[in-house]
Amino acid sequence: MQAVNLKAKLDSFDEHWTPKIVSMFNGHDVMVVKAEGEFTWHSHPDTDDFFLVLEGELVIEMREGDVHLGPGDLYVVPKGVEHRPIAKGEVHALLIEPAGTPNTGDATTAAIKERI
Amino acid sequence: MQAVNLKAKLDSFDEHWTPKIVSMFNGHDVMVVKAEGEFTWHSHPDTDDFFLVLEGELVIEMREGDVHLGPGDLYVVPKGVEHRPIAKGEVHALLIEPAGTPNTGDATTAAIKERI
Repeated sequence: MQAVNLKAKLDSFDEHWTPKIVSMFNGHDVMVVKAEGEFTWHSHPDTDDFFLVLEGELVIEMREGDVHLGPGDLYVVPKGVEHRPIAKGEVHALLIEPAGTPNTGDATTAAIKERI
Repeated sequence: MQAVNLKAKLDSFDEHWTPKIVSMFNGHDVMVVKAEGEFTWHSHPDTDDFFLVLEGELVIEMREGDVHLGPGDLYVVPKGVEHRPIAKGEVHALLIEPAGTPNTGDATTAAIKERI
């Protein structure tokens, strides 16, 4: 039984847009991710999408408007809402999604989520 | 559409052990809390209990052993596991629980969770 130190987990890998599972919560994966540049437009038809920025500046573009997040800012993209995350420089974030949710909204293009 | 700044939310109240709802995620309340001193022993028979420490030092006592959390540390207490959080000095934390979960594990003694 040990706490998960998010910084230590983030220091253990370098890939971008490849969420790593650090814990489980009520059937959800709790993940850390490093991001840089633009991700793809996508949506999740069955789940909200939880973002908490730990480091850097993230913009979540949506058709209705953009949300800007810095360290200590969180935003939950509602189920079904199309969005495109854009990291200005490198961003570290905590993500929560139901286990098995494809990060691109599409299983054929999704990153494989490893537990670290 | 605006990000939730956790520090600004935490700066807006003073009470201890009274989680404030700042967002919703898949039927869960996303909350910030200020804590100081010992909470009560309790468990949640139907849900895991998510803690992310933002500031200060939190110990989560459990019958099997204790978990120590500092800033940037998270721990998920599994469903049904008895635990007692103890804040050494003031602690600020992010909590996630299904909407309506009593923070003491008992509706008759639970804090009322206001949305801020």
